[in-house]
Amino acid sequence: MLKTSVYAAATAGARLAPSTIERRDPGPKDVLIEILYSGICHSDVHQARDEWGGATFPMVPGHEIVGRVTQVGKDVTKFAIGDHAAVGCFVDSCRVCGPCREGYEQFCEQGVAYTYNSTEMDRETPTYGGYSTHIVVREDYTLKVPSGLDLAGAAPLLCAGITTYSPLRQFACKKGDRVAVVGLGGLGHMAVKLAASMGAEVTVLSTSRSKEADARRLGAQGFEVTKDASTFQKLANRFNLIVDTVSAPHDLNAYLGTLHHYGTMVLVGVPPEDARLAAFSLILGNRRLAGSNIGGIAETQEMLNYCGEHGIVADVETIRVQDVNEAYERMLKNDVRYRFVIDTASFKV
Amino acid sequence: MLKTSVYAAATAGARLAPSTIERRDPGPKDVLIEILYSGICHSDVHQARDEWGGATFPMVPGHEIVGRVTQVGKDVTKFAIGDHAAVGCFVDSCRVCGPCREGYEQFCEQGVAYTYNSTEMDRETPTYGGYSTHIVVREDYTLKVPSGLDLAGAAPLLCAGITTYSPLRQFACKKGDRVAVVGLGGLGHMAVKLAASMGAEVTVLSTSRSKEADARRLGAQGFEVTKDASTFQKLANRFNLIVDTVSAPHDLNAYLGTLHHYGTMVLVGVPPEDARLAAFSLILGNRRLAGSNIGGIAETQEMLNYCGEHGIVADVETIRVQDVNEAYERMLKNDVRYRFVIDTASFKV
Repeated sequence: MLKTSVYAAATAGARLAPSTIERRDPGPKDVLIEILYSGICHSDVHQARDEWGGATFPMVPGHEIVGRVTQVGKDVTKFAIGDHAAVGCFVDSCRVCGPCREGYEQFCEQGVAYTYNSTEMDRETPTYGGYSTHIVVREDYTLKVPSGLDLAGAAPLLCAGITTYSPLRQFACKKGDRVAVVGLGGLGHMAVKLAASMGAEVTVLSTSRSKEADARRLGAQGFEVTKDASTFQKLANRFNLIVDTVSAPHDLNAYLGTLHHYGTMVLVGVPPEDARLAAFSLILGNRRLAGSNIGGIAETQEMLNYCGEHGIVADVETIRVQDVNEAYERMLKNDVRYRFVIDTASFKV
Repeated sequence: MLKTSVYAAATAGARLAPSTIERRDPGPKDVLIEILYSGICHSDVHQARDEWGGATFPMVPGHEIVGRVTQVGKDVTKFAIGDHAAVGCFVDSCRVCGPCREGYEQFCEQGVAYTYNSTEMDRETPTYGGYSTHIVVREDYTLKVPSGLDLAGAAPLLCAGITTYSPLRQFACKKGDRVAVVGLGGLGHMAVKLAASMGAEVTVLSTSRSKEADARRLGAQGFEVTKDASTFQKLANRFNLIVDTVSAPHDLNAYLGTLHHYGTMVLVGVPPEDARLAAFSLILGNRRLAGSNIGGIAETQEMLNYCGEHGIVADVETIRVQDVNEAYERMLKNDVRYRFVIDTASFKV
């Protein structure tokens, strides 16, 4: 077993603190990854505070992982020592159910092995995430990082990137489409970059004017403030696609009214309460409301390759692991542009 | 002007009674249709009772019209005297806006001229529907009835038929798809027939067991009673497509859970109140919720042609126009299998 330095929450809501865990010795199909960067996702806070229920402790969060392969099992074929590798939201799945065989491992009928706050598929061994110096993962649940990408900026692609890339692809975002991105946070800023790279005319819908310059710098051609009720009238029937990244409560019906006929609004954020939905909001204009949940391994690799070809990474603020608790507080105040990433070199300090 | 016999509601909620109205003399692009059959749609009752607001009186309901062309304007090219013709939910639109030019006249930016309880595009001349002996309509908003279809059974195709055909086409219903139809009424029974004709494996979801034999006769291979909570567990992740025809309140989240990943539930009924929707119901499984609203002229003609090729009509109970008020009462109690159609020969009795 490999003793590994981590930052862990000992109990629900506890401050994250240095600790050690044991990783398994790499098996024949495993790679050992020296973690270089680990992004901080909003869900890390929810889980560490057990706000969604069912959390297990000690918890080592982190599912936006980029590193370097330092050891490979004897049957590993995809990776060699020295390769840059990445790990996203899950590290295994049953491999035999319909969704797994179709490449939608995230919908594994047995439930995936999430990267942390979960178990391996033996349903016993706990999984620990990326706030850590090393991780051991099966090679076929490990992603390749295209050369040329900034590694710190690439880490958030593993969650924020795939979460916004997948719906843009599912709903065939293309040149000339009018795409709205609701909310300009970690997910939203990726949605803007990706949709713009696909040739869409992107409009950011935000509660405040303060992020307009950033939105335009990221690739948006339009920016509208949603606190102004006239905004929704002005934008009526406008968008082919809306990517809604907001997890605060908001009126879906108002946003649906800004869809062109046959347009789709995709939810990737999870508000804490049920929304109210009028059937007419969908029936008038044959509008669609969809949800999207990360992506499978093949689609995640496709996304990474796409970002490699287009030079797309997240805008990140790199922090020391020792500052993770302060980063959580700042993230909860939206005081980050646009993703915190832990530089794991700080473990050695 | 053409004096025309009708059954009309004089005021909101009044019993429908015999009356006369004037139709315009056919212009160069108009056809005069002797109405043979006029279906009774649930929305006729809502409108005659002004339950959706904005109703105008006297009102002559009816937007499921089949008849015979008895006069054509000098520039009419699509129709000849003696042809069977049909009229659906609208009789004109602006013709120049984006949706009109794309064939989605039902989403006309100026608002269509509905077949009744509306105005012609001059926004002055009231429109009167199919509970009537004759109607005058522009030829390009008039549909052709394929030969060989039972004319009484064909009338409901103009609303119930297109309302269910369109979503099946939008979401590419095909052989082997698992399709659920929620509610077995006027819309639902058409959805079953149409989906089965496309090769889908159809399951009817109903509040009561009483319609199971009918469902199977109409083409369903499965039938499930939704009052039993275990039904939703049993059906988890099952359907590629759900056509939800129910306008009574019901829990969308429960039904969404029966969708396969990437599956779509389409609303064609309008419950009186907003539904509650959990974002996770869509995000887990990348599920979609859509609405669909009748169809454009081209798609309505496509549907009629399809029904002609496949010998599909509605199951109807033909009534005399004098019995329309009793038919309304029976329809509100779901005491019709599955659509009332007025035989307008009864006007002459």
